[in-house]
Amino acid sequence: MNKDTFLKKNEGMWLPNKLPVGLLKKYYNFIPDADWGERVQKSCVRMNNGGSASFVSPDGLIVTNHHVAESILHDLSSARKDYLKDGFYAKTQKEELKAPKLEVNVLWEIEDVTERVNAAVNAKKNARAMTEARKRVIAEIEKESLEASGLRSDVVTLYQGGAYHLYRYKKYTDVRMVFAPEASIAAFGGDYDNYEYPRYCLDATFLRVYENNKPVKTDFFFKWNTKDSTLGELTFVAGHPGTTYRLTTAARIKYLRDIGLPRWMNIIRRWEVSMQQYGGKSPEHERQAGSDLRSWQNVRKRWQAEVDVLQDPAFMKDIEAREAYVRGLIRKNKKLKSYDKAWDDIEKTQKVLLKIRDELGFFEHGRGFDTVYFKFARMLVRLHEEDKKKNGDRLTEYTQARRPQLEQSILSKQPIYSELEEYKLKDSLSFLLETFGSDDDVIQKILGGLSPAARAREMVKKTKLGSVNIRKKMLQDTKLVHASNDPFIELVRFIDKRSRAVRKVYEEKIAHVEEEAYGKIARALFELFGDSVYPDATFTLRVAYAPISKYTYEKVSEQDWSTIAQTFAHADKHEREGYWKLPQSWLKKEKILTKDKTTFNFITGHDTHGGNSGSPVFDRDLNITGLLFDGMLHSQGDAYRYMEIPDHSLSVHTAGIYSVLKKVYNATRLIKELDAARKTKKK
Amino acid sequence: MNKDTFLKKNEGMWLPNKLPVGLLKKYYNFIPDADWGERVQKSCVRMNNGGSASFVSPDGLIVTNHHVAESILHDLSSARKDYLKDGFYAKTQKEELKAPKLEVNVLWEIEDVTERVNAAVNAKKNARAMTEARKRVIAEIEKESLEASGLRSDVVTLYQGGAYHLYRYKKYTDVRMVFAPEASIAAFGGDYDNYEYPRYCLDATFLRVYENNKPVKTDFFFKWNTKDSTLGELTFVAGHPGTTYRLTTAARIKYLRDIGLPRWMNIIRRWEVSMQQYGGKSPEHERQAGSDLRSWQNVRKRWQAEVDVLQDPAFMKDIEAREAYVRGLIRKNKKLKSYDKAWDDIEKTQKVLLKIRDELGFFEHGRGFDTVYFKFARMLVRLHEEDKKKNGDRLTEYTQARRPQLEQSILSKQPIYSELEEYKLKDSLSFLLETFGSDDDVIQKILGGLSPAARAREMVKKTKLGSVNIRKKMLQDTKLVHASNDPFIELVRFIDKRSRAVRKVYEEKIAHVEEEAYGKIARALFELFGDSVYPDATFTLRVAYAPISKYTYEKVSEQDWSTIAQTFAHADKHEREGYWKLPQSWLKKEKILTKDKTTFNFITGHDTHGGNSGSPVFDRDLNITGLLFDGMLHSQGDAYRYMEIPDHSLSVHTAGIYSVLKKVYNATRLIKELDAARKTKKK
Repeated sequence: MNKDTFLKKNEGMWLPNKLPVGLLKKYYNFIPDADWGERVQKSCVRMNNGGSASFVSPDGLIVTNHHVAESILHDLSSARKDYLKDGFYAKTQKEELKAPKLEVNVLWEIEDVTERVNAAVNAKKNARAMTEARKRVIAEIEKESLEASGLRSDVVTLYQGGAYHLYRYKKYTDVRMVFAPEASIAAFGGDYDNYEYPRYCLDATFLRVYENNKPVKTDFFFKWNTKDSTLGELTFVAGHPGTTYRLTTAARIKYLRDIGLPRWMNIIRRWEVSMQQYGGKSPEHERQAGSDLRSWQNVRKRWQAEVDVLQDPAFMKDIEAREAYVRGLIRKNKKLKSYDKAWDDIEKTQKVLLKIRDELGFFEHGRGFDTVYFKFARMLVRLHEEDKKKNGDRLTEYTQARRPQLEQSILSKQPIYSELEEYKLKDSLSFLLETFGSDDDVIQKILGGLSPAARAREMVKKTKLGSVNIRKKMLQDTKLVHASNDPFIELVRFIDKRSRAVRKVYEEKIAHVEEEAYGKIARALFELFGDSVYPDATFTLRVAYAPISKYTYEKVSEQDWSTIAQTFAHADKHEREGYWKLPQSWLKKEKILTKDKTTFNFITGHDTHGGNSGSPVFDRDLNITGLLFDGMLHSQGDAYRYMEIPDHSLSVHTAGIYSVLKKVYNATRLIKELDAARKTKKK
Repeated sequence: MNKDTFLKKNEGMWLPNKLPVGLLKKYYNFIPDADWGERVQKSCVRMNNGGSASFVSPDGLIVTNHHVAESILHDLSSARKDYLKDGFYAKTQKEELKAPKLEVNVLWEIEDVTERVNAAVNAKKNARAMTEARKRVIAEIEKESLEASGLRSDVVTLYQGGAYHLYRYKKYTDVRMVFAPEASIAAFGGDYDNYEYPRYCLDATFLRVYENNKPVKTDFFFKWNTKDSTLGELTFVAGHPGTTYRLTTAARIKYLRDIGLPRWMNIIRRWEVSMQQYGGKSPEHERQAGSDLRSWQNVRKRWQAEVDVLQDPAFMKDIEAREAYVRGLIRKNKKLKSYDKAWDDIEKTQKVLLKIRDELGFFEHGRGFDTVYFKFARMLVRLHEEDKKKNGDRLTEYTQARRPQLEQSILSKQPIYSELEEYKLKDSLSFLLETFGSDDDVIQKILGGLSPAARAREMVKKTKLGSVNIRKKMLQDTKLVHASNDPFIELVRFIDKRSRAVRKVYEEKIAHVEEEAYGKIARALFELFGDSVYPDATFTLRVAYAPISKYTYEKVSEQDWSTIAQTFAHADKHEREGYWKLPQSWLKKEKILTKDKTTFNFITGHDTHGGNSGSPVFDRDLNITGLLFDGMLHSQGDAYRYMEIPDHSLSVHTAGIYSVLKKVYNATRLIKELDAARKTKKK
């Protein structure tokens, strides 16, 4: 390995204010305008339910994946009206439906605050004081910024602590549904086709961002492309990839391969099977549990693919070669020499993690009490506890800057299905008992001499936390929480000491140590490679570049990309049953659609990751040509190292979306808006 | 607890030659004739694929559950003809279809050989020698008996070594399919309705036993009842319950509750999800994997229910009370006093098990190489190895008495789907790697520097063991096995030392110790309770008695039992989709069937267990009134202690079967045979 092979072609999730201009020029002879990055940045939208979106009109119209909007559709639905099953289209603006809990953010300003954070931290001597100092100064910066700008202000930790950027976001909490197709075509092929190719998914949903009860106006949006693309064409993806582990040490990756991921797979499969079982009780149960089920299926399939890649010795060799190369350079470098210890420090944290992971997962992360009632109770109890402390001393999620999100969570109007909550609670209490055994006194007290099933029944029957009003009162009045004998409030109180204790160990002995160690590795890399280093993904805006490619892995498909017409042949292959049952709306237009050779889903080589779902795929002139909706199964090693294959990401093509909006859904108002926006002259 | 409450009403899986005549008289005032037990015994059939059946005509016609016959139907099917989906009916005897691999047994003679076994064992001094001596004398007895009688001869270990009975079976290997309904109605409601009530399953299949290419003649059969039953009526179930753990110590049950079962659940869920994924590739893949998938779903649901019961403190209290009571009696009894140590001995074996369980499971039990090719290779390699030893020194399954089954397994004509085998092998190699890590040299050599996926592909591509002819040659010629470079033969050779080593530890440190200890407990119980003790289930013939009851747990259904007519309402509740899609044959007769109030599925309180599937439910006059096909979810604690509830077992009623054979399937030939048999005068 050498400096040139360290970074692969098309690799990188780049900061919008630090684009890889040298690489873009080198590989594609593309030199972006000075404000190109800013225009991309302000056209992009972060969905705080875990996805990406982008503006496609000056009137606040945004587009994302159907699977990103799925939880919204789920929350808007009821036993009477199922928007997931039937889809949704607001023929007039008045009919646009408000999402019960959703915040979206547009990244407006970026400020480098690394020096201020480091100054505060470096003044301290021991690890614990440093962690506290960092937390305090970050809370301070965020609070100041929020008060000064009125914008949501998050200090983002980049390069695992190598740099700190203050991100100021325009924040919107009034987002309304404009158009969503039926889930059956959005997620056509379901769990089975997920991460595979060829695909035929209309994984797209349009929403509109409102402010003061009116559609928000914006100068920044992508123009909707209605034509097929060209193989090899340079495109970009801008979105919010979740956590990646690109600097992860080989020791940690081996831990994940042999212990961490297999253990999580057991948990995920448990939840998956549990939700399947609940859903089997009736179609209404299936609807209630559908959203959870699809999440677990998705995670299970992705992580299995990750394990598969990690179990390939060739992949691990590449990881080890990179590590040996970097450590070799560091050892030879007087200034960086001492950083070599970082790898050993990380190896040690794995051992601490092994000891506390159950305690942390079941108590602090609430795995033992998997119900929304517990989450409400936890937030209410801790909020009043933390309010007694200075802002900087509070647990991160209870600081002043995070208060709006916290209150939104507590007051969420999401529907709650008590039977589903009881079912999940029963299973998680049972899991708790399995994990800690029946000899643990605390567990015995939690169960109160009952079986998990009986205890869950009793608790869910008694709790009043399903009521938004009661939660609102408890949010406002600490006395009500103190006096409450709600079983979940009592539970949270009972376990809170134990729960906070393990969190403290985790933060001090693992999180802090890793932050320091990865910070060193990241800084060393920066010293060694300068601009060619990009930070690991952090669910903040990143830009990736790559050509449009085609499927080359194992199976060979006959066409470069799937088409609308082929959807029917694929349905036939599966006898049009189950996940391959087409919606009525498509069947009605079968004659027309089977002649439609517009591109439906296509493949690119972009370096993307979970959280990128819904990201715009766009050309150098900021025309949107697709919505990224999936990564390929065999590219899941990307979490640790970008893989040398042309097919990483899957997108639904804007031309395909446009075609069916017209032919199947008669979405005239939407089409007009996209057309008008495309014709807009803008800077 | 006292002597009277130690055994609950209707409890017991009784030996056919040791019926609980006292209890039958006491509770039901029923005094069976002298030959009643023998007539039941000879009317019953053991399916060696893991289920029960019974003769219902003098011409070898037997009836069992569809789910017991499922593997036969699966093996008879192909991509062209799917008997599981479409069902099967032989309109003429000529059309009856031979099962590719199936042995059924009729228990013909029982001989108590306890003294001979104990004499041989007690002559030895240390544990290892005793184990060897026991194995040797059992092999000797079986061989002598087989040679003398020509009957399959198995020494059955009862009371966990408290007694040894020699069972001589009439053995039949030519069994032909007569009638099977569509799987959609046989397993109506699928995994979701499994173990639940109300149920609507036509879980019945008729087969015919042949000998010398002709239907076998028998004097012993049940007469087919065509009328509804009466609530509270005394009935019997005779069948082959699999392993129960009724004498299991509380320590062992806690181990199972907290460690053993949860760990197995993780494995089962893994296999379940894996088979689901494979099946999603196409309807043909779904067909190939269907049988495995349904098995895992079934086991997963049952074991989860078992965990649920064990996690109920009330259930555990009952277990502990029983143990305290028994140990109290033993400690007070001079003769038995020393047996109290048995409980401690068993607790110790759990610790050994914890250490070797992965090694045992992955190597000796082949969990790391989950493909039929490995099984063939293992049998071929070991068979020739073991043949060099004296019969008594061989591994149990390679002794002379077991040779016919072994050869049948090696030469089985079951269809093999190489893609499915590769898929399973890949997943199990991946699991092996997860479990033992990549630092294990042996694992690395097994994988040969490849990923599990690549290694599985390579091995399956290269192996020739899919051919019956090649297996036949290797069976006959040890040189061919020695010279073979088949990857699975090489694999078996490579791991065999390690594999045999852990088996030896298991047999000496666990199996033998437990056998001794449970033997003591069982003998102590026999001393204390005499005839009222029945041995744990051993997949040999047992008789249970109980009244016909109704569903009383949680939900209350409106009727005592489900009817043919209600099947349609149940389908409607689930929108007639997925597992609730009725077969065309039923839909065609919907008008008639929705008026048919004949009992379809009903409930009894019988003490049954897995393996009892397909057992006849019959009255004191040996009229068959049902086929047991399932246990209720909430009765799964029965594995450890019969539970004090009226609803344990689910059966499909003979009147319901008869009604649809007529109305839906026009199975005239079959109906005539059942009618004629019913009218036969027999002793």
